[in-house]
Amino acid sequence: MKYLIIYAHPNPKSFNNAIKDAVISKLTKEDKSFEIRDLYALGFDPILKGSDFIGFKEGKIPLDIVEEQNYIKSADRIILIHPIWWFGMPAILKGYIDRVFSYGFAYRAGEKGIEGLLTGKKVFILNTTGETQDQYVQYGFKDAISKTFQNGIFNFCGMEIISHQFFFAVPTITDADRKNILKQISTMPF
Amino acid sequence: MKYLIIYAHPNPKSFNNAIKDAVISKLTKEDKSFEIRDLYALGFDPILKGSDFIGFKEGKIPLDIVEEQNYIKSADRIILIHPIWWFGMPAILKGYIDRVFSYGFAYRAGEKGIEGLLTGKKVFILNTTGETQDQYVQYGFKDAISKTFQNGIFNFCGMEIISHQFFFAVPTITDADRKNILKQISTMPF
Repeated sequence: MKYLIIYAHPNPKSFNNAIKDAVISKLTKEDKSFEIRDLYALGFDPILKGSDFIGFKEGKIPLDIVEEQNYIKSADRIILIHPIWWFGMPAILKGYIDRVFSYGFAYRAGEKGIEGLLTGKKVFILNTTGETQDQYVQYGFKDAISKTFQNGIFNFCGMEIISHQFFFAVPTITDADRKNILKQISTMPF
Repeated sequence: MKYLIIYAHPNPKSFNNAIKDAVISKLTKEDKSFEIRDLYALGFDPILKGSDFIGFKEGKIPLDIVEEQNYIKSADRIILIHPIWWFGMPAILKGYIDRVFSYGFAYRAGEKGIEGLLTGKKVFILNTTGETQDQYVQYGFKDAISKTFQNGIFNFCGMEIISHQFFFAVPTITDADRKNILKQISTMPF
């Protein structure tokens, strides 16, 4: 069983980084095999370009994309850790999806419509938000984000979402609340 | 009345480019004053960085962000033209929102909660999709995208959405259908 952590936050002092460390600590304790793709640390290029499309068409996939696709290929379980910005992914992660989840790798058009090609992989999403749970639920943002991330991206490619956790209002909750979240993560069944 | 076109597509032969040209042609004919920010052509950097956050905090906003904020400040009407990728914005545009719509410029926390600072500006969104209208409506993607773009971004900042158009399944419709869309754009009340 191989795990892949995909992490996107610019600040090593962020709560997202603490979440990543809690996940790493848990996987290490349980002697799990894992890789981490820290998109900011890697300087990942998120801009899907005309040359990428030409590469996909000609079967000459750009090397930085091939590298990320190989990490995904090898993984049985994928753990995404990132903040919600403007009710979506940070651009560096959105562009990772735009570029790495390419036609022919992540999905293809089959006889019966779209076929997901990443079947068998299980996904866990850990998101922080600035706004409160009330604001997310009352105004329908939680449902909208779940819809686009879960159905629109991961299920679309044949993956199964095991858990999509929102940790709400992290800039304004107490340190005790934050510690509880990290404790909660240490008992999550990844 | 000043217009700002924000455009995000890598391919000058794309249907999105034809849509942009139709909008430009219309504004030109009507003798409207407009600016275009073609994010791919500009090589816009979409990655919100730790140094950006420090800049926002210290009132030293990075120059490339100041430049885009000045375009937005000057505009009465903003026309966004871009494809939907993975049920969201292309990363280069998502990162434009992440970086340019900064705290203190686009919104702030007031006594009664969040205050949008870009009031009075009217927004038009023109989106192309790969999937069909049925798929977007039946599975709730249209509602989810409308929710996050309209309420989550533009209304959040005090702007008013006048129109959010989806042009569905553009890779698979006929040339006649595409011409009809461009004709439709030439009669839209921007």
